[in-house]
Amino acid sequence: MKALVIHAARDLRIEERTPERLGPGQVRIRTAAGGVCGSDLHYYNHGGFGTVRLREPMILGHEVSGHVVEVAPGVTGLAEGDLVAVSPSRPCGGCGWCMKGLPNHCENMRFYGSAMPFPHIQGAFRQDLVADASQCVRAEGLTAGEAAMAEPLAVTLHGVRRAGEMLGKRVLVTGCGPIGLLSILSARMAGAGEIVATDLSDFTLEMARRCGADVALNTAVQPDALSRYSEGKGSFDVLLECTGVAAAVAPAIAAMRPRGVVVQLGLGGDMALPMMAVTAKELDLRGSFRFHEEFATGVAAMQAGRVDVKPLITHQVALDEAVSAFRLASDRSLAIKAQILFA
Amino acid sequence: MKALVIHAARDLRIEERTPERLGPGQVRIRTAAGGVCGSDLHYYNHGGFGTVRLREPMILGHEVSGHVVEVAPGVTGLAEGDLVAVSPSRPCGGCGWCMKGLPNHCENMRFYGSAMPFPHIQGAFRQDLVADASQCVRAEGLTAGEAAMAEPLAVTLHGVRRAGEMLGKRVLVTGCGPIGLLSILSARMAGAGEIVATDLSDFTLEMARRCGADVALNTAVQPDALSRYSEGKGSFDVLLECTGVAAAVAPAIAAMRPRGVVVQLGLGGDMALPMMAVTAKELDLRGSFRFHEEFATGVAAMQAGRVDVKPLITHQVALDEAVSAFRLASDRSLAIKAQILFA
Amino acid sequence: MKALVIHAARDLRIEERTPERLGPGQVRIRTAAGGVCGSDLHYYNHGGFGTVRLREPMILGHEVSGHVVEVAPGVTGLAEGDLVAVSPSRPCGGCGWCMKGLPNHCENMRFYGSAMPFPHIQGAFRQDLVADASQCVRAEGLTAGEAAMAEPLAVTLHGVRRAGEMLGKRVLVTGCGPIGLLSILSARMAGAGEIVATDLSDFTLEMARRCGADVALNTAVQPDALSRYSEGKGSFDVLLECTGVAAAVAPAIAAMRPRGVVVQLGLGGDMALPMMAVTAKELDLRGSFRFHEEFATGVAAMQAGRVDVKPLITHQVALDEAVSAFRLASDRSLAIKAQILFA
Amino acid sequence: MKALVIHAARDLRIEERTPERLGPGQVRIRTAAGGVCGSDLHYYNHGGFGTVRLREPMILGHEVSGHVVEVAPGVTGLAEGDLVAVSPSRPCGGCGWCMKGLPNHCENMRFYGSAMPFPHIQGAFRQDLVADASQCVRAEGLTAGEAAMAEPLAVTLHGVRRAGEMLGKRVLVTGCGPIGLLSILSARMAGAGEIVATDLSDFTLEMARRCGADVALNTAVQPDALSRYSEGKGSFDVLLECTGVAAAVAPAIAAMRPRGVVVQLGLGGDMALPMMAVTAKELDLRGSFRFHEEFATGVAAMQAGRVDVKPLITHQVALDEAVSAFRLASDRSLAIKAQILFA
Repeated sequence: MKALVIHAARDLRIEERTPERLGPGQVRIRTAAGGVCGSDLHYYNHGGFGTVRLREPMILGHEVSGHVVEVAPGVTGLAEGDLVAVSPSRPCGGCGWCMKGLPNHCENMRFYGSAMPFPHIQGAFRQDLVADASQCVRAEGLTAGEAAMAEPLAVTLHGVRRAGEMLGKRVLVTGCGPIGLLSILSARMAGAGEIVATDLSDFTLEMARRCGADVALNTAVQPDALSRYSEGKGSFDVLLECTGVAAAVAPAIAAMRPRGVVVQLGLGGDMALPMMAVTAKELDLRGSFRFHEEFATGVAAMQAGRVDVKPLITHQVALDEAVSAFRLASDRSLAIKAQILFA
Repeated sequence: MKALVIHAARDLRIEERTPERLGPGQVRIRTAAGGVCGSDLHYYNHGGFGTVRLREPMILGHEVSGHVVEVAPGVTGLAEGDLVAVSPSRPCGGCGWCMKGLPNHCENMRFYGSAMPFPHIQGAFRQDLVADASQCVRAEGLTAGEAAMAEPLAVTLHGVRRAGEMLGKRVLVTGCGPIGLLSILSARMAGAGEIVATDLSDFTLEMARRCGADVALNTAVQPDALSRYSEGKGSFDVLLECTGVAAAVAPAIAAMRPRGVVVQLGLGGDMALPMMAVTAKELDLRGSFRFHEEFATGVAAMQAGRVDVKPLITHQVALDEAVSAFRLASDRSLAIKAQILFA
Repeated sequence: MKALVIHAARDLRIEERTPERLGPGQVRIRTAAGGVCGSDLHYYNHGGFGTVRLREPMILGHEVSGHVVEVAPGVTGLAEGDLVAVSPSRPCGGCGWCMKGLPNHCENMRFYGSAMPFPHIQGAFRQDLVADASQCVRAEGLTAGEAAMAEPLAVTLHGVRRAGEMLGKRVLVTGCGPIGLLSILSARMAGAGEIVATDLSDFTLEMARRCGADVALNTAVQPDALSRYSEGKGSFDVLLECTGVAAAVAPAIAAMRPRGVVVQLGLGGDMALPMMAVTAKELDLRGSFRFHEEFATGVAAMQAGRVDVKPLITHQVALDEAVSAFRLASDRSLAIKAQILFA
Repeated sequence: MKALVIHAARDLRIEERTPERLGPGQVRIRTAAGGVCGSDLHYYNHGGFGTVRLREPMILGHEVSGHVVEVAPGVTGLAEGDLVAVSPSRPCGGCGWCMKGLPNHCENMRFYGSAMPFPHIQGAFRQDLVADASQCVRAEGLTAGEAAMAEPLAVTLHGVRRAGEMLGKRVLVTGCGPIGLLSILSARMAGAGEIVATDLSDFTLEMARRCGADVALNTAVQPDALSRYSEGKGSFDVLLECTGVAAAVAPAIAAMRPRGVVVQLGLGGDMALPMMAVTAKELDLRGSFRFHEEFATGVAAMQAGRVDVKPLITHQVALDEAVSAFRLASDRSLAIKAQILFA
């Protein structure tokens, strides 16, 4: 089978690998679609991010779907031919954090395509993938591309849940890349009232409007676009922060109302925060990291038609053209989500 | 102007009354539609409920909409001709509970059509209504009937907010009268996952399905219909209890998972609760009473098309036929929401 | 070794039993003190409670301490001679509720001395007890009697945690048996402001004052003693309900302020609740069941002198006199906590 | 009467002022003690902080106690001779935030001795102070010095309440100035388990131990003193951050466990936060600003002997020596709380 292997920054190769053996409780999947995520792009463009660096070749990818082609004896609920969304999250189930109901903080997490531990955790951009049945959510009625969106959708559903109850709340979303746009969809699904989105690109802002943002503001063109929301003590109940960039956060914090909730979804390294405002307004700033049960929630929501991610899939390319998908996905003015088709 | 006045059980009269004078900060409204609520029916059928009894004639009604016909000097944001939903909630704004941000617990509440204090608080089923501008929410784009649904919708939005974050949660709704059905719509709007509804009437259960319930169970026909959800330690994350009847609550509690949340919306007097189960499962049982900012939230949600209450308005009758609306609304197998048209 | 075995109501025998074998990860304990709990008394006086009935002989007891006399190879942190408090809670660590961080809701719980499953879970009132090392908390500096109080103290610490943050709150405790009194100590430890306690016995009320209650009211003598707290919309922020008796709950609910929190600690079967008041005041009624990490918290708090349970241990009797301890403990006007000394 | 007036950095004068007239609902207080706070020191040493700058002479001070010498007609609950703690917080009671139960976010706050609005809000360091009766809490049984500690104690009680339920929690306090030390006392009062404190001064760390810190670490001497708590995913449940200094925050964040709570009490301007860790650990960072009902809570806790602030009052000087109190209080190795005696 073929796999997409990153060796170093800008050194991404399609290589032949031997399929893994099927173990108990597992299924074999012929992968269908795989989405390119921001962290994949960091490996591709920079060889890593922060202190996380590539130290050996690694199969990339953690947003995949595919069809079950083999089922280990005893596995129930999955059958050959099923389209499944495959969760890249593989917590150990035994550590203290798993036992506290926080598997996303598992001390022994084996998340697909991650260079955090060494040896690295190999990813899911491969034609033949062996996965635990528990990672797989049946995705009947969805396209393979939609099913591959379950992972980033789960990230934003988790982020929105971190913000708490959202009925009628006024929500600000900073950054309209895939996570920002899915945050808009997730906030809307949770009953948000007015949603305002900011970004530097008219292309993504137009997409934000399609996703349900009531107002979409280009802060490259209008740097003080949020100032109208900063009057009095500020307007927004919730900020879903998807940039990780201090220049975006500062005016957003200024527009928050006292006791507002800020969910940090963007992972942008250290950041100078306007702590005077955070303290004086008594904001709640909550980190949000990965997901767990939200993976199945997202699949079900797509199946029920409560969230439509299809407009976000702007590009799909064949595996042989995968490198072009990475170049495309690196350009925010051209692509939202680029996916690779493995068939 | 004509008003609908209850004198005693089954003694409901259309009477001529003098319009009130317009004070500062107020508007005059020519009422359009008024919905008959469960408490109106208690006054009509029984002269009250619990210790709340009619002691003098009282204009009924608290679910109304209408058109602004006069605006006091200095009032902004409202103009002649505007269709408005009129909130029946008039907290004093000065007592300890108002100052704690809990105006629904105001010690001096003057809620339309309520026999709780004496003299009673006269209601809104009248052709000419003087209201504070702050009670009025512009309802452009809605029908008068929809606008009159803002009040019961607000009750259920408040109840759903009391349940907390709801994304992907498994929700049980017991009782599919207007409040139960609006609870289904509100839970769906808040991102609920599977919604199961129970009632004793096929008519209301069919309506529950139209409102988005995934499963609708007739517990008159199948008394143990919920038992399948009671296996293990139970299934439901949230119960929105809209019956106030012990016989409905007991099996519902049995179907709740540990640490599940029960919101009590039905006001049915004292009730024998299965406290062993409540305690051993560590359920959270939360009372929900009226609403506040949810009134405007509901109007906005209807305007944005995020919730559609129109199917619930099963009957609209002219003021002269108002008594028939009360008879109709008393029969759950015939009517969901009966409204009176005042024009 | 001797064990205290209940065969039927009022049929409690001291019997000779064979010590268990030590398995991996376990320690052998020569028990020192064991407290008689309300559920022990239900088995003794009535052969069970509710649907939980004795169906075979069962060693009673779940509040015990003792000295380690043997340690399995590989066990660390415990040594021969250590005084330990032994938690009776033995969740499976593998079921869904254990994995959600809610081991007190374990589907396969083996809680000492419980007739809930069949065969029954044998208890800890025995001279030689083999326990998992993870059940044992070192209790250096405490008396054996204090260490045996760790279990009921954990129950109340859990209950107080269920009530949420408590700094300066006005707290009502209904029922001043061991759980009520420990609730007073726990609420005080959590920073409660004024604490009011009610009971029917002057003996326990005097003890309530010693535990830190600011006001102790005998509702047998003064049935409407709480009415002064019911004025306006009520006074108490928190109710720790330790009776499970409707006659105690009704006036307590009437004395709660809107949005107050009621924690149900007493397990008294079904109960008629004043749901009108619960709903109209939007109370939060939360069940509290057993405990988990609070067991170690309680031991540490006793060691640091932050809570003093010694006054509650009103009686200690030798194993041969155990039956008298059960008779004593059944009389609220004589005893708070009666303990059996196993040495 | 004399008042302590700041004109510019290092220009602090004792001036003669005319006492204010007593209005309805007010009392006249002969001030007794006044504590010098960090913000007073900012005005004294730097003429302000951040964008808050002195623009006109301002009476300093907001931590005061005194004796009632005159009572306006109709005021109840206060009598001549009463020692009272005087809250510097004067919210308007009418703005949106006051009405939401968040008076500490009042848009029209007149907090004593604050240069935030212009004209500035004159402070309470004066011999004759006219205050609203609602600002005064009777402090019978306390010394004037203790009563003047009610304000900073309220700040930390508010901060601890922002952290939520604290029974048995492992708490880190960074910075052991007056706010840090009172945070230790407040956390202990709320039932905290192990408390670890850090500072750069052995003097304050010794005081931290006296306040109940279990471990006190000098991070000037041992820069990596917290690293032992950073193993695995970190140890602390709660961080009470009282420095506002990035160099202190970074290692503290590294020592937090996943889903830990960080309360920011120190107001140190903007700050570079380790957002990667905040996000990946899903920390909750909550600003804490001033207080409201905690003022009375603190007085009652001191009266009941549940918290002892006396050791923190390291210096008391006569009004004529007030400038020396400001110099002293500026040196962390010499003073914790310096108070001025106005009599």
